[in-house]
Amino acid sequence: MRIHREHVSVRYAETDRMGVAHHSSYLLWFELGRTGLLREAGYAYRDLEASGCLLPVLEYGCTFHRGADYDDRLVIETTVRALRSRTVVFAYRTLRDEELLAEGFTRHLCVDGSNLPRRLPDDVRRAVADFLLPPEHPSTEL
Amino acid sequence: MRIHREHVSVRYAETDRMGVAHHSSYLLWFELGRTGLLREAGYAYRDLEASGCLLPVLEYGCTFHRGADYDDRLVIETTVRALRSRTVVFAYRTLRDEELLAEGFTRHLCVDGSNLPRRLPDDVRRAVADFLLPPEHPSTEL
Amino acid sequence: MRIHREHVSVRYAETDRMGVAHHSSYLLWFELGRTGLLREAGYAYRDLEASGCLLPVLEYGCTFHRGADYDDRLVIETTVRALRSRTVVFAYRTLRDEELLAEGFTRHLCVDGSNLPRRLPDDVRRAVADFLLPPEHPSTEL
Amino acid sequence: MRIHREHVSVRYAETDRMGVAHHSSYLLWFELGRTGLLREAGYAYRDLEASGCLLPVLEYGCTFHRGADYDDRLVIETTVRALRSRTVVFAYRTLRDEELLAEGFTRHLCVDGSNLPRRLPDDVRRAVADFLLPPEHPSTEL
Repeated sequence: MRIHREHVSVRYAETDRMGVAHHSSYLLWFELGRTGLLREAGYAYRDLEASGCLLPVLEYGCTFHRGADYDDRLVIETTVRALRSRTVVFAYRTLRDEELLAEGFTRHLCVDGSNLPRRLPDDVRRAVADFLLPPEHPSTEL
Repeated sequence: MRIHREHVSVRYAETDRMGVAHHSSYLLWFELGRTGLLREAGYAYRDLEASGCLLPVLEYGCTFHRGADYDDRLVIETTVRALRSRTVVFAYRTLRDEELLAEGFTRHLCVDGSNLPRRLPDDVRRAVADFLLPPEHPSTEL
Repeated sequence: MRIHREHVSVRYAETDRMGVAHHSSYLLWFELGRTGLLREAGYAYRDLEASGCLLPVLEYGCTFHRGADYDDRLVIETTVRALRSRTVVFAYRTLRDEELLAEGFTRHLCVDGSNLPRRLPDDVRRAVADFLLPPEHPSTEL
Repeated sequence: MRIHREHVSVRYAETDRMGVAHHSSYLLWFELGRTGLLREAGYAYRDLEASGCLLPVLEYGCTFHRGADYDDRLVIETTVRALRSRTVVFAYRTLRDEELLAEGFTRHLCVDGSNLPRRLPDDVRRAVADFLLPPEHPSTEL
Protein backbone atom coordinates (compact mmCIF):
# COMPACT_ATOMS: atom_id res chain seq x y z
CA MET A 1 0.00 0.00 0.00
CA ARG A 2 1.32 3.42 -0.97
CA ILE A 3 0.84 6.81 0.65
CA HIS A 4 1.22 10.02 -1.29
CA ARG A 5 3.02 12.75 0.66
CA GLU A 6 2.50 16.36 -0.41
CA HIS A 7 4.46 19.19 1.19
CA VAL A 8 2.76 22.55 1.73
CA SER A 9 3.59 25.66 3.72
CA VAL A 10 0.87 27.66 5.43
CA ARG A 11 0.38 30.90 3.49
CA TYR A 12 -0.15 34.19 5.26
CA ALA A 13 -3.49 34.67 3.51
CA GLU A 14 -4.61 31.26 4.80
CA THR A 15 -4.41 32.40 8.43
CA ASP A 16 -7.22 34.30 10.14
CA ARG A 17 -7.36 36.67 13.09
CA MET A 18 -7.27 33.71 15.50
CA GLY A 19 -3.65 33.47 14.31
CA VAL A 20 -3.84 29.97 12.82
CA ALA A 21 -4.82 28.57 9.43
CA HIS A 22 -8.54 28.97 8.74
CA HIS A 23 -10.36 25.63 8.83
CA SER A 24 -11.33 25.93 5.16
CA SER A 25 -7.64 25.92 4.12
CA TYR A 26 -7.41 22.21 4.87
CA LEU A 27 -9.78 21.48 1.98
CA LEU A 28 -7.41 23.30 -0.37
CA TRP A 29 -4.48 21.24 0.92
CA PHE A 30 -6.52 18.02 0.61
CA GLU A 31 -7.11 19.03 -3.01
CA LEU A 32 -3.34 19.33 -3.49
CA GLY A 33 -2.95 15.95 -1.80
CA ARG A 34 -5.33 14.04 -4.08
CA THR A 35 -4.02 15.86 -7.16
CA GLY A 36 -0.53 14.76 -6.16
CA LEU A 37 -1.68 11.18 -5.55
CA LEU A 38 -3.29 11.04 -8.99
CA ARG A 39 -0.14 12.42 -10.59
CA GLU A 40 2.01 9.90 -8.67
CA ALA A 41 -0.38 7.22 -9.98
CA GLY A 42 0.34 8.42 -13.51
CA TYR A 43 -2.80 10.49 -14.16
CA ALA A 44 -2.63 14.27 -13.90
CA TYR A 45 -6.10 15.50 -12.98
CA ARG A 46 -5.98 18.12 -15.75
CA ASP A 47 -5.58 15.28 -18.27
CA LEU A 48 -8.39 13.29 -16.66
CA GLU A 49 -10.69 16.31 -17.02
CA ALA A 50 -9.61 16.81 -20.63
CA SER A 51 -10.48 13.16 -21.33
CA GLY A 52 -13.98 13.56 -19.88
CA CYS A 53 -13.46 12.17 -16.38
CA LEU A 54 -14.27 14.77 -13.72
CA LEU A 55 -14.36 14.10 -9.99
CA PRO A 56 -16.69 16.58 -8.25
CA VAL A 57 -16.91 16.37 -4.45
CA LEU A 58 -20.03 14.66 -3.05
CA GLU A 59 -19.09 14.89 0.60
CA TYR A 60 -16.25 15.88 2.86
CA GLY A 61 -15.34 15.85 6.51
CA CYS A 62 -12.46 16.98 8.68
CA THR A 63 -11.52 16.63 12.36
CA PHE A 64 -8.98 18.91 14.02
CA HIS A 65 -6.48 18.06 16.75
CA ARG A 66 -4.15 21.07 16.64
CA GLY A 67 -3.96 24.34 14.73
CA ALA A 68 -1.41 25.08 12.01
CA ASP A 69 0.58 28.31 12.25
CA TYR A 70 1.72 30.66 9.52
CA ASP A 71 4.72 29.32 7.60
CA ASP A 72 4.49 25.84 9.15
CA ARG A 73 5.78 23.14 6.83
CA LEU A 74 3.05 20.50 6.63
CA VAL A 75 2.81 17.09 5.06
CA ILE A 76 -0.51 15.96 3.62
CA GLU A 77 -0.60 12.16 3.56
CA THR A 78 -3.20 10.99 1.06
CA THR A 79 -4.54 7.48 0.58
CA VAL A 80 -7.69 5.91 -0.87
CA ARG A 81 -10.29 4.66 1.61
CA ALA A 82 -12.84 3.28 -0.83
CA LEU A 83 -12.88 2.67 -4.56
CA ARG A 84 -16.05 1.62 -6.36
CA SER A 85 -17.01 1.64 -10.01
CA ARG A 86 -18.16 5.28 -9.98
CA THR A 87 -16.99 6.72 -6.67
CA VAL A 88 -13.74 7.13 -4.83
CA VAL A 89 -13.04 8.25 -1.26
CA PHE A 90 -9.69 9.85 -0.46
CA ALA A 91 -8.43 10.00 3.14
CA TYR A 92 -6.02 12.68 4.37
CA ARG A 93 -3.78 13.21 7.38
CA THR A 94 -2.20 16.62 7.93
CA LEU A 95 1.06 16.41 9.86
CA ARG A 96 3.59 18.89 11.22
CA ASP A 97 6.74 16.88 11.82
CA GLU A 98 5.35 13.79 13.56
CA GLU A 99 2.32 15.56 15.01
CA LEU A 100 -1.14 14.87 13.56
CA LEU A 101 -2.99 18.18 13.15
CA ALA A 102 -6.10 17.10 11.26
CA GLU A 103 -7.59 14.18 9.38
CA GLY A 104 -10.29 14.21 6.80
CA PHE A 105 -11.83 12.65 3.72
CA THR A 106 -13.49 13.63 0.46
CA ARG A 107 -15.93 11.46 -1.50
CA HIS A 108 -16.10 11.95 -5.28
CA LEU A 109 -18.36 10.86 -8.08
CA CYS A 110 -16.91 10.29 -11.52
CA VAL A 111 -18.86 12.25 -14.16
CA ASP A 112 -18.36 12.97 -17.85
CA GLY A 113 -18.22 16.36 -19.55
CA SER A 114 -22.05 16.57 -19.46
CA ASN A 115 -22.02 15.99 -15.71
CA LEU A 116 -23.49 12.48 -16.05
CA PRO A 117 -22.19 9.69 -13.77
CA ARG A 118 -19.79 7.29 -15.49
CA ARG A 119 -17.40 4.48 -14.48
CA LEU A 120 -13.87 5.38 -13.52
CA PRO A 121 -11.64 4.28 -16.41
CA ASP A 122 -10.16 0.83 -15.61
CA ASP A 123 -6.55 1.94 -15.93
CA VAL A 124 -7.11 4.86 -13.54
CA ARG A 125 -8.88 2.54 -11.09
CA ARG A 126 -6.01 0.06 -11.15
CA ALA A 127 -3.39 2.75 -10.65
CA VAL A 128 -5.29 4.40 -7.82
CA ALA A 129 -5.88 1.01 -6.12
CA ASP A 130 -2.19 0.98 -5.11
CA PHE A 131 -3.08 3.67 -2.56
CA LEU A 132 -6.07 1.79 -1.12
CA LEU A 133 -6.04 1.46 2.66
CA PRO A 134 -6.34 -2.10 4.02
CA PRO A 135 -9.83 -2.66 5.52
CA GLU A 136 -8.49 -3.00 9.07
CA HIS A 137 -6.60 0.30 8.93
CA PRO A 138 -7.54 2.44 11.95
CA SER A 139 -8.28 5.61 10.01
CA THR A 140 -11.04 3.81 8.10
CA GLU A 141 -13.23 4.45 11.17
CA LEU A 142 -13.06 8.14 10.46
CA MET B 1 -37.55 26.35 17.60
CA ARG B 2 -35.96 29.09 15.51
CA ILE B 3 -34.01 28.89 12.28
CA HIS B 4 -31.62 31.63 11.24
CA ARG B 5 -31.76 32.45 7.52
CA GLU B 6 -28.76 34.15 5.94
CA HIS B 7 -28.85 35.32 2.33
CA VAL B 8 -25.71 35.08 0.22
CA SER B 9 -24.94 35.37 -3.48
CA VAL B 10 -22.30 33.21 -5.11
CA ARG B 11 -19.28 35.40 -5.88
CA TYR B 12 -17.37 35.02 -9.12
CA ALA B 13 -14.15 34.29 -7.21
CA GLU B 14 -15.96 31.46 -5.40
CA THR B 15 -16.52 29.52 -8.62
CA ASP B 16 -13.89 27.26 -10.15
CA ARG B 17 -13.20 26.02 -13.67
CA MET B 18 -15.92 23.36 -13.27
CA GLY B 19 -18.25 26.39 -13.47
CA VAL B 20 -19.86 26.02 -10.03
CA ALA B 21 -18.99 27.20 -6.55
CA HIS B 22 -15.89 25.46 -5.18
CA HIS B 23 -16.77 23.02 -2.40
CA SER B 24 -14.73 25.01 0.14
CA SER B 25 -17.00 28.05 -0.36
CA TYR B 26 -19.76 26.35 1.61
CA LEU B 27 -17.63 26.54 4.76
CA LEU B 28 -17.40 30.31 4.32
CA TRP B 29 -21.17 30.53 3.94
CA PHE B 30 -21.69 28.30 6.98
CA GLU B 31 -19.48 30.76 8.86
CA LEU B 32 -21.79 33.58 7.78
CA GLY B 33 -24.75 31.45 8.87
CA ARG B 34 -23.57 30.81 12.43
CA THR B 35 -22.34 34.40 12.79
CA GLY B 36 -25.81 35.53 11.77
CA LEU B 37 -27.47 33.09 14.18
CA LEU B 38 -25.33 34.36 17.06
CA ARG B 39 -26.17 37.97 16.15
CA GLU B 40 -29.88 37.10 15.94
CA ALA B 41 -29.48 35.49 19.39
CA GLY B 42 -28.10 38.81 20.65
CA TYR B 43 -24.38 38.01 20.66
CA ALA B 44 -22.17 39.30 17.87
CA TYR B 45 -19.24 36.92 17.52
CA ARG B 46 -16.79 39.82 17.54
CA ASP B 47 -18.08 40.77 21.00
CA LEU B 48 -17.89 37.15 22.18
CA GLU B 49 -14.25 37.03 21.10
CA ALA B 50 -13.53 40.36 22.80
CA SER B 51 -15.03 38.96 26.03
CA GLY B 52 -12.77 35.89 25.90
CA CYS B 53 -15.12 33.34 24.39
CA LEU B 54 -13.75 31.94 21.12
CA LEU B 55 -15.29 29.11 19.14
CA PRO B 56 -12.64 27.35 17.04
CA VAL B 57 -13.82 24.55 14.77
CA LEU B 58 -13.14 20.98 16.00
CA GLU B 59 -14.82 19.17 13.15
CA TYR B 60 -16.92 19.79 10.07
CA GLY B 61 -18.73 17.88 7.40
CA CYS B 62 -20.72 18.65 4.28
CA THR B 63 -22.78 16.61 1.79
CA PHE B 64 -23.67 17.92 -1.66
CA HIS B 65 -26.81 17.35 -3.66
CA ARG B 66 -26.50 20.01 -6.40
CA GLY B 67 -23.96 22.59 -7.43
CA ALA B 68 -24.42 26.35 -6.96
CA ASP B 69 -23.84 28.62 -9.95
CA TYR B 70 -22.30 32.06 -10.10
CA ASP B 71 -24.64 34.80 -8.90
CA ASP B 72 -27.18 32.32 -7.47
CA ARG B 73 -29.05 33.74 -4.51
CA LEU B 74 -28.76 31.19 -1.71
CA VAL B 75 -30.25 30.86 1.74
CA ILE B 76 -28.18 29.33 4.51
CA GLU B 77 -30.50 27.93 7.17
CA THR B 78 -28.62 27.56 10.44
CA THR B 79 -29.75 25.75 13.57
CA VAL B 80 -28.08 24.17 16.61
CA ARG B 81 -27.82 20.39 16.64
CA ALA B 82 -26.13 19.91 20.01
CA LEU B 83 -25.32 22.20 22.91
CA ARG B 84 -23.19 21.05 25.81
CA SER B 85 -21.33 22.94 28.51
CA ARG B 86 -18.23 23.50 26.37
CA THR B 87 -19.18 22.49 22.84
CA VAL B 88 -21.79 23.46 20.29
CA VAL B 89 -22.71 21.89 16.97
CA PHE B 90 -24.30 24.05 14.28
CA ALA B 91 -26.24 22.47 11.40
CA TYR B 92 -26.63 24.13 8.00
CA ARG B 93 -28.81 23.70 4.95
CA THR B 94 -27.94 25.56 1.74
CA LEU B 95 -30.98 26.24 -0.41
CA ARG B 96 -31.62 27.82 -3.81
CA ASP B 97 -35.30 28.68 -3.84
CA GLU B 98 -36.83 25.50 -2.41
CA GLU B 99 -34.04 23.22 -3.62
CA LEU B 100 -31.59 21.76 -1.10
CA LEU B 101 -28.05 22.06 -2.49
CA ALA B 102 -25.96 20.99 0.47
CA GLU B 103 -26.17 20.26 4.18
CA GLY B 104 -23.42 20.29 6.73
CA PHE B 105 -22.35 20.86 10.31
CA THR B 106 -19.51 22.38 12.31
CA ARG B 107 -18.56 21.38 15.87
CA HIS B 108 -16.94 24.01 18.05
CA LEU B 109 -15.15 24.08 21.37
CA CYS B 110 -15.45 27.15 23.56
CA VAL B 111 -11.98 28.43 24.59
CA ASP B 112 -10.69 31.53 26.37
CA GLY B 113 -8.10 33.99 25.14
CA SER B 114 -5.30 31.57 26.16
CA ASN B 115 -6.89 28.82 24.06
CA LEU B 116 -7.98 26.83 27.15
CA PRO B 117 -11.39 25.12 27.14
CA ARG B 118 -14.05 26.93 29.13
CA ARG B 119 -17.81 26.76 29.64
CA LEU B 120 -20.05 28.66 27.27
CA PRO B 121 -21.40 31.67 29.20
CA ASP B 122 -24.87 30.80 30.57
CA ASP B 123 -26.61 33.72 28.88
CA VAL B 124 -25.13 32.79 25.48
CA ARG B 125 -26.12 29.16 26.00
CA ARG B 126 -29.69 30.11 26.83
CA ALA B 127 -29.99 32.42 23.83
CA VAL B 128 -28.52 29.88 21.43
CA ALA B 129 -30.78 27.13 22.81
CA ASP B 130 -33.72 28.78 21.01
CA PHE B 131 -32.22 27.45 17.78
CA LEU B 132 -31.77 23.89 19.06
CA LEU B 133 -33.21 21.21 16.80
CA PRO B 134 -35.69 18.84 18.44
CA PRO B 135 -34.09 15.38 18.96
CA GLU B 136 -36.39 13.67 16.47
CA HIS B 137 -35.57 16.15 13.69
CA PRO B 138 -34.57 14.25 10.54
CA SER B 139 -31.39 16.20 9.84
CA THR B 140 -29.99 15.06 13.20
CA GLU B 141 -29.03 11.84 11.41
CA LEU B 142 -26.55 13.72 9.31
CA MET C 1 -23.40 61.02 -12.52
CA ARG C 2 -24.36 57.94 -10.53
CA ILE C 3 -22.42 56.00 -7.93
CA HIS C 4 -23.22 52.40 -7.15
CA ARG C 5 -23.05 51.57 -3.44
CA GLU C 6 -22.57 47.95 -2.42
CA HIS C 7 -22.68 46.89 1.23
CA VAL C 8 -20.38 44.14 2.45
CA SER C 9 -19.33 42.86 5.86
CA VAL C 10 -15.80 41.64 6.49
CA ARG C 11 -15.89 37.85 6.77
CA TYR C 12 -13.82 36.04 9.39
CA ALA C 13 -12.06 34.05 6.69
CA GLU C 14 -11.06 37.32 4.99
CA THR C 15 -8.96 38.42 7.97
CA ASP C 16 -5.38 37.27 8.49
CA ARG C 17 -3.15 36.93 11.55
CA MET C 18 -2.45 40.67 11.48
CA GLY C 19 -6.07 40.91 12.64
CA VAL C 20 -7.42 42.91 9.68
CA ALA C 21 -8.81 42.01 6.26
CA HIS C 22 -6.13 40.59 3.96
CA HIS C 23 -5.25 43.03 1.19
CA SER C 24 -6.47 40.59 -1.48
CA SER C 25 -10.02 40.71 -0.05
CA TYR C 26 -10.50 44.19 -1.50
CA LEU C 27 -10.34 42.77 -5.02
CA LEU C 28 -13.23 40.44 -4.15
CA TRP C 29 -15.23 43.38 -2.84
CA PHE C 30 -14.39 45.44 -5.92
CA GLU C 31 -15.77 42.52 -7.96
CA LEU C 32 -19.00 42.75 -5.97
CA GLY C 33 -19.01 46.49 -6.57
CA ARG C 34 -18.74 46.35 -10.36
CA THR C 35 -21.17 43.42 -10.52
CA GLY C 36 -23.63 45.53 -8.55
CA LEU C 37 -23.05 48.56 -10.79
CA LEU C 38 -23.71 46.48 -13.91
CA ARG C 39 -26.89 45.09 -12.36
CA GLU C 40 -28.01 48.59 -11.35
CA ALA C 41 -27.33 49.61 -14.98
CA GLY C 42 -29.67 46.83 -16.10
CA TYR C 43 -27.11 44.19 -17.12
CA ALA C 44 -26.39 41.28 -14.80
CA TYR C 45 -22.85 40.12 -15.49
CA ARG C 46 -24.02 36.50 -15.71
CA ASP C 47 -26.28 37.51 -18.59
CA LEU C 48 -23.49 39.47 -20.27
CA GLU C 49 -21.27 36.39 -20.12
CA ALA C 50 -24.07 34.21 -21.47
CA SER C 51 -24.46 36.63 -24.41
CA GLY C 52 -20.74 36.44 -25.26
CA CYS C 53 -19.47 39.58 -23.56
CA LEU C 54 -16.82 38.75 -20.95
CA LEU C 55 -14.78 41.32 -19.05
CA PRO C 56 -11.47 39.82 -17.93
CA VAL C 57 -9.20 42.03 -15.82
CA LEU C 58 -6.22 43.60 -17.64
CA GLU C 59 -4.86 45.58 -14.74
CA TYR C 60 -5.70 46.56 -11.18
CA GLY C 61 -4.39 48.75 -8.43
CA CYS C 62 -5.28 49.56 -4.84
CA THR C 63 -4.03 52.04 -2.23
CA PHE C 64 -4.72 51.59 1.48
CA HIS C 65 -5.35 54.25 4.09
CA ARG C 66 -6.71 52.18 7.00
CA GLY C 67 -7.31 48.51 7.71
CA ALA C 68 -10.76 46.91 7.87
CA ASP C 69 -11.61 44.78 10.91
CA TYR C 70 -13.62 41.61 11.14
CA ASP C 71 -17.39 42.21 10.91
CA ASP C 72 -16.97 45.84 9.84
CA ARG C 73 -19.83 47.02 7.64
CA LEU C 74 -18.25 48.54 4.54
CA VAL C 75 -19.58 50.42 1.55
CA ILE C 76 -17.94 49.91 -1.84
CA GLU C 77 -18.60 52.95 -4.01
CA THR C 78 -18.15 52.04 -7.65
CA THR C 79 -17.99 54.36 -10.63
CA VAL C 80 -16.57 54.27 -14.17
CA ARG C 81 -13.33 56.12 -14.77
CA ALA C 82 -12.90 55.44 -18.47
CA LEU C 83 -15.07 53.90 -21.14
CA ARG C 84 -13.75 53.16 -24.62
CA SER C 85 -15.03 50.94 -27.39
CA ARG C 86 -13.40 47.78 -26.02
CA THR C 87 -12.18 48.65 -22.54
CA VAL C 88 -13.70 49.94 -19.34
CA VAL C 89 -12.04 51.13 -16.13
CA PHE C 90 -13.98 50.90 -12.87
CA ALA C 91 -12.96 52.98 -9.84
CA TYR C 92 -13.70 51.94 -6.26
CA ARG C 93 -13.70 53.57 -2.85
CA THR C 94 -14.03 51.40 0.26
CA LEU C 95 -15.60 53.25 3.17
CA ARG C 96 -16.40 52.47 6.80
CA ASP C 97 -18.98 55.03 7.84
CA GLU C 98 -17.47 58.22 6.43
CA GLU C 99 -13.88 57.01 6.60
CA LEU C 100 -12.04 56.12 3.39
CA LEU C 101 -10.16 52.84 3.91
CA ALA C 102 -8.93 52.10 0.40
CA GLU C 103 -9.34 53.16 -3.21
CA GLY C 104 -8.60 51.23 -6.33
CA PHE C 105 -9.40 50.50 -9.94
CA THR C 106 -9.70 47.61 -12.37
CA ARG C 107 -9.26 47.85 -16.14
CA HIS C 108 -11.15 45.35 -18.29
CA LEU C 109 -11.09 44.26 -21.89
CA CYS C 110 -14.31 43.11 -23.52
CA VAL C 111 -13.86 39.70 -25.18
CA ASP C 112 -16.20 37.18 -26.79
CA GLY C 113 -16.61 33.51 -25.89
CA SER C 114 -13.45 32.67 -27.88
CA ASN C 115 -11.47 35.19 -25.86
CA LEU C 116 -11.14 37.59 -28.81
CA PRO C 117 -11.43 41.35 -28.22
CA ARG C 118 -14.77 42.82 -29.25
CA ARG C 119 -16.67 46.09 -28.83
CA LEU C 120 -18.80 46.58 -25.76
CA PRO C 121 -22.45 46.31 -26.90
CA ASP C 122 -23.82 49.83 -27.45
CA ASP C 123 -26.71 49.46 -25.03
CA VAL C 124 -24.36 48.28 -22.25
CA ARG C 125 -22.00 51.17 -23.01
CA ARG C 126 -24.80 53.72 -22.80
CA ALA C 127 -26.12 52.30 -19.53
CA VAL C 128 -22.70 52.14 -17.95
CA ALA C 129 -21.91 55.71 -19.08
CA ASP C 130 -24.31 57.00 -16.41
CA PHE C 131 -21.67 56.06 -13.84
CA LEU C 132 -18.81 57.80 -15.67
CA LEU C 133 -16.77 60.15 -13.49
CA PRO C 134 -16.45 63.71 -14.78
CA PRO C 135 -12.91 64.32 -16.17
CA GLU C 136 -12.01 66.82 -13.45
CA HIS C 137 -12.94 64.42 -10.65
CA PRO C 138 -10.08 64.20 -8.14
CA SER C 139 -9.94 60.41 -7.98
CA THR C 140 -9.10 60.29 -11.69
CA GLU C 141 -5.49 61.02 -10.66
CA LEU C 142 -5.30 57.66 -8.99
CA MET D 1 21.69 42.09 -8.28
CA ARG D 2 19.78 39.00 -7.21
CA ILE D 3 16.34 37.76 -8.20
CA HIS D 4 14.37 35.41 -6.00
CA ARG D 5 12.54 32.70 -7.94
CA GLU D 6 9.57 31.00 -6.30
CA HIS D 7 7.83 28.05 -7.94
CA VAL D 8 4.06 27.69 -7.60
CA SER D 9 1.43 25.57 -9.30
CA VAL D 10 -2.02 26.95 -10.03
CA ARG D 11 -4.48 25.32 -7.59
CA TYR D 12 -7.90 24.19 -8.74
CA ALA D 13 -9.55 26.45 -6.17
CA GLU D 14 -7.63 29.42 -7.59
CA THR D 15 -9.35 29.11 -10.97
CA ASP D 16 -12.77 30.60 -11.69
CA ARG D 17 -15.53 29.83 -14.16
CA MET D 18 -13.62 31.70 -16.89
CA GLY D 19 -11.27 28.68 -16.67
CA VAL D 20 -8.13 30.57 -15.65
CA ALA D 21 -6.64 31.68 -12.35
CA HIS D 22 -8.70 34.44 -10.71
CA HIS D 23 -6.88 37.77 -10.82
CA SER D 24 -6.72 37.93 -7.01
CA SER D 25 -4.60 34.75 -6.92
CA TYR D 26 -1.61 36.69 -8.18
CA LEU D 27 -1.51 38.68 -4.94
CA LEU D 28 -1.22 35.41 -3.00
CA TRP D 29 1.64 34.30 -5.24
CA PHE D 30 3.35 37.68 -4.87
CA GLU D 31 3.11 37.14 -1.11
CA LEU D 32 4.89 33.80 -1.53
CA GLY D 33 7.47 35.57 -3.69
CA ARG D 34 8.41 38.26 -1.18
CA THR D 35 8.30 35.77 1.70
CA GLY D 36 10.74 33.62 -0.27
CA LEU D 37 12.97 36.62 -1.05
CA LEU D 38 13.10 37.56 2.64
CA ARG D 39 13.96 33.98 3.59
CA GLU D 40 16.65 33.86 0.89
CA ALA D 41 17.97 37.12 2.36
CA GLY D 42 18.21 35.38 5.74
CA TYR D 43 15.06 36.76 7.40
CA ALA D 44 11.96 34.59 7.63
CA TYR D 45 8.96 36.90 7.76
CA ARG D 46 7.54 35.00 10.73
CA ASP D 47 10.70 35.89 12.67
CA LEU D 48 10.52 39.52 11.54
CA GLU D 49 6.96 39.71 12.84
CA ALA D 50 7.98 38.05 16.12
CA SER D 51 10.72 40.68 16.52
CA GLY D 52 8.26 43.55 16.03
CA CYS D 53 8.81 44.35 12.36
CA LEU D 54 5.59 43.96 10.35
CA LEU D 55 5.19 44.89 6.70
CA PRO D 56 1.55 45.69 5.93
CA VAL D 57 0.68 46.49 2.31
CA LEU D 58 0.16 50.20 1.50
CA GLU D 59 -0.45 49.78 -2.21
CA TYR D 60 -0.36 47.20 -4.95
CA GLY D 61 -0.78 46.94 -8.67
CA CYS D 62 -0.76 44.24 -11.30
CA THR D 63 -0.91 44.15 -15.11
CA PHE D 64 -1.90 41.02 -17.02
CA HIS D 65 -0.60 39.80 -20.38
CA ARG D 66 -1.88 36.20 -20.44
CA GLY D 67 -4.01 34.00 -18.21
CA ALA D 68 -2.65 31.12 -16.12
CA ASP D 69 -4.38 27.74 -16.40
CA TYR D 70 -5.07 25.14 -13.75
CA ASP D 71 -1.97 23.14 -12.81
CA ASP D 72 0.40 25.44 -14.71
CA ARG D 73 3.85 25.55 -13.15
CA LEU D 74 4.71 29.21 -12.66
CA VAL D 75 7.78 31.08 -11.55
CA ILE D 76 7.38 34.25 -9.49
CA GLU D 77 10.48 36.41 -9.93
CA THR D 78 10.75 38.85 -7.05
CA THR D 79 13.06 41.81 -6.71
CA VAL D 80 13.12 45.09 -4.78
CA ARG D 81 12.23 48.24 -6.68
CA ALA D 82 12.66 50.80 -3.90
CA LEU D 83 14.08 50.66 -0.40
CA ARG D 84 13.78 53.61 1.96
CA SER D 85 14.14 53.89 5.71
CA ARG D 86 10.55 52.87 6.43
CA THR D 87 9.15 51.56 3.17
CA VAL D 88 10.00 48.89 0.66
CA VAL D 89 8.56 48.18 -2.78
CA PHE D 90 8.75 44.65 -4.15
CA ALA D 91 8.39 43.98 -7.89
CA TYR D 92 7.10 40.71 -9.31
CA ARG D 93 7.06 38.97 -12.67
CA THR D 94 4.92 35.86 -13.13
CA LEU D 95 6.29 33.54 -15.82
CA ARG D 96 5.17 30.27 -17.41
CA ASP D 97 8.30 28.85 -19.01
CA GLU D 98 9.71 31.94 -20.76
CA GLU D 99 6.36 33.66 -21.18
CA LEU D 100 5.52 36.69 -19.04
CA LEU D 101 1.95 36.35 -17.75
CA ALA D 102 1.74 39.25 -15.32
CA GLU D 103 3.84 41.84 -13.54
CA GLY D 104 3.09 43.74 -10.40
CA PHE D 105 4.34 45.43 -7.27
CA THR D 106 3.48 45.84 -3.60
CA ARG D 107 4.53 48.77 -1.42
CA HIS D 108 4.94 48.13 2.30
CA LEU D 109 5.38 50.24 5.41
CA CYS D 110 7.43 48.88 8.28
CA VAL D 111 5.46 49.07 11.56
CA ASP D 112 6.02 47.76 15.07
CA GLY D 113 3.70 45.56 17.12
CA SER D 114 1.57 48.63 18.01
CA ASN D 115 1.15 49.43 14.32
CA LEU D 116 3.39 52.51 14.53
CA PRO D 117 5.79 53.27 11.65
CA ARG D 118 9.40 52.37 12.39
CA ARG D 119 12.68 52.06 10.48
CA LEU D 120 13.50 48.79 8.80
CA PRO D 121 16.26 47.17 10.88
CA ASP D 122 19.66 47.94 9.31
CA ASP D 123 20.65 44.29 8.88
CA VAL D 124 17.37 43.49 7.10
CA ARG D 125 17.79 46.54 4.88
CA ARG D 126 21.31 45.53 3.89
CA ALA D 127 20.30 41.96 3.14
CA VAL D 128 17.28 43.00 1.10
CA ALA D 129 19.35 45.57 -0.83
CA ASP D 130 21.02 42.68 -2.70
CA PHE D 131 17.74 42.28 -4.58
CA LEU D 132 17.41 45.97 -5.48
CA LEU D 133 16.77 46.64 -9.17
CA PRO D 134 19.24 49.02 -10.85
CA PRO D 135 17.59 52.43 -11.48
CA GLU D 136 17.67 52.05 -15.26
CA HIS D 137 15.91 48.68 -15.18
CA PRO D 138 12.93 48.75 -17.56
CA SER D 139 10.38 47.38 -15.09
CA THR D 140 10.97 50.38 -12.80
CA GLU D 141 8.58 52.27 -15.10
CA LEU D 142 5.78 50.03 -13.95
